[in-house]
Amino acid sequence: MLRSQFEEELEKLHNQFYAMGNEVLSQINRTVRAFVSHDRELAKEVINDDADVNEYEIKLEKKSLEIIALQQPVSQDLRTVITVLKASSDLERMGDHAVSIAQAAIRMKGELRIKSVEDEISKMGREVKNFVEEALNLYLSGNTDQAYAVAAQDERINEYFDRIRELATEEIKNNPEAIVTGRDYFQVISYLERIGDYAKNICEWVVYFETGKIIEL
Amino acid sequence: MLRSQFEEELEKLHNQFYAMGNEVLSQINRTVRAFVSHDRELAKEVINDDADVNEYEIKLEKKSLEIIALQQPVSQDLRTVITVLKASSDLERMGDHAVSIAQAAIRMKGELRIKSVEDEISKMGREVKNFVEEALNLYLSGNTDQAYAVAAQDERINEYFDRIRELATEEIKNNPEAIVTGRDYFQVISYLERIGDYAKNICEWVVYFETGKIIEL
Repeated sequence: MLRSQFEEELEKLHNQFYAMGNEVLSQINRTVRAFVSHDRELAKEVINDDADVNEYEIKLEKKSLEIIALQQPVSQDLRTVITVLKASSDLERMGDHAVSIAQAAIRMKGELRIKSVEDEISKMGREVKNFVEEALNLYLSGNTDQAYAVAAQDERINEYFDRIRELATEEIKNNPEAIVTGRDYFQVISYLERIGDYAKNICEWVVYFETGKIIEL
Repeated sequence: MLRSQFEEELEKLHNQFYAMGNEVLSQINRTVRAFVSHDRELAKEVINDDADVNEYEIKLEKKSLEIIALQQPVSQDLRTVITVLKASSDLERMGDHAVSIAQAAIRMKGELRIKSVEDEISKMGREVKNFVEEALNLYLSGNTDQAYAVAAQDERINEYFDRIRELATEEIKNNPEAIVTGRDYFQVISYLERIGDYAKNICEWVVYFETGKIIEL
C-alpha cells in the first residue's frame, strides 16, 4: 500500500527528532568523558558540535510549524507534531548543558582535582546518559506503560546530586584551595541533574503523544 | 463592530500568558527578597505559589492545543498560539528556578552568611527581574525593534554571574567554613543566570510571533 505524502512527512519528522536525540546523547556521553578524563580536545569537539544540535532544533521547529500550517493535522497526527515541537526544546537544552560541562572541563585543566568526586561524577554521568537513552527509546516505542518506570530514574540522579554535593563540600572544608575546582563540580552536577529533568519532560511528552493527556510524572 | 469568537479566544490566550508572566515575575521578586533578607516565611510562600504557575502552564497548553485542533489557525494567528505554547515552558522553568532559590533560602537559615556576596546577589536579582519584566512588555507591545536591546541585558546578567562567582570563591578561600553557604550562592546565581536565558528566549519568541522568523538573539 502506498502511503500518503503527509504520513511520510510525519515519519520524517519523527525520525529527525530521534536523530537529534541521538546527537544529544552522543554530546552527553562525550562531555562526561571529557570532563572526567581531563580531555581538552574532546571538550572542544563537544562545543563545536553544539551547532549541529541547534540546527536540528531550528529545522524541527520550522518543519513542525510548516506541517501545522499547511496540513492542519488533527488528533494523533497533531500530537506528533506538537510533541516534536515541545520536546525538541528539551533536547536542545540538554545540548546546552553538555556544552557548559565541556567548558568546565576546559577551564579546569591543570587545576587541583578531587578524584573521589570525579569518580562519582563519572557514575552520575553514566546514569544520566542511560536515562536520556531510555527516554528516547520510550519515544520510539511509544510504550507509555514504561513511562513511569523510566521517569523514576530522575530520583536516582537527584540522589547522586545530593551525595556528590556533600562529598565535594567535605573535601573543600579540608582543603580550601579545592574551591576553585569544587565550584565547577557543583556546576557540573547541577547541569547533569538538569539534563535528568529534561529527560523526564520527554517521558511526559511521550505520554501526551500517546494519550493526549498532559501529566507530571 | 462585533469580533468573532475566535479572535476573543486568541486575545484571552494572549492575556492569560501575560498574566502567567506576571505571576512568575512576582515569584522572582519575592524569592530574591526572601533569599537576601533571610525570610523563611516568604520563601515558603514562593514554594506554595508555584502550583499556580504550573496550573497556568497546563491551562495554556491545553487551550493552545484546543485552538490549533478546532480552529486550525494560520499565519499570525497560528503564531500567536505557537508562541504561547513554547514560551509558556520558559515561564514555567523560570518559576521552577524561583522555587529552587526559595529552597536555598530555607536551607541556609542560620548558616554563616557573606554580606558582600548577598548584596551583589540582591542587585543581580533586581536586574533579572527587570529583564523578565521588559521581555513581558516586549511580548505585550510586539515591538520587535526593541527585541535586540532587551535581549542584550542577558550579557549584563552573565557579567554579574562571573563577578559574584569570583567574589564568593575568594571569600571561601579565606574562610573555608563558608563553603556550606557558598555552594548555595553558586547555585542561586546559576538559577538567576538561567532565568535570564529564558527571558532571552521569550524575546526570541516575540520576534517569531511578529515576523515568522526563528532567530537567536
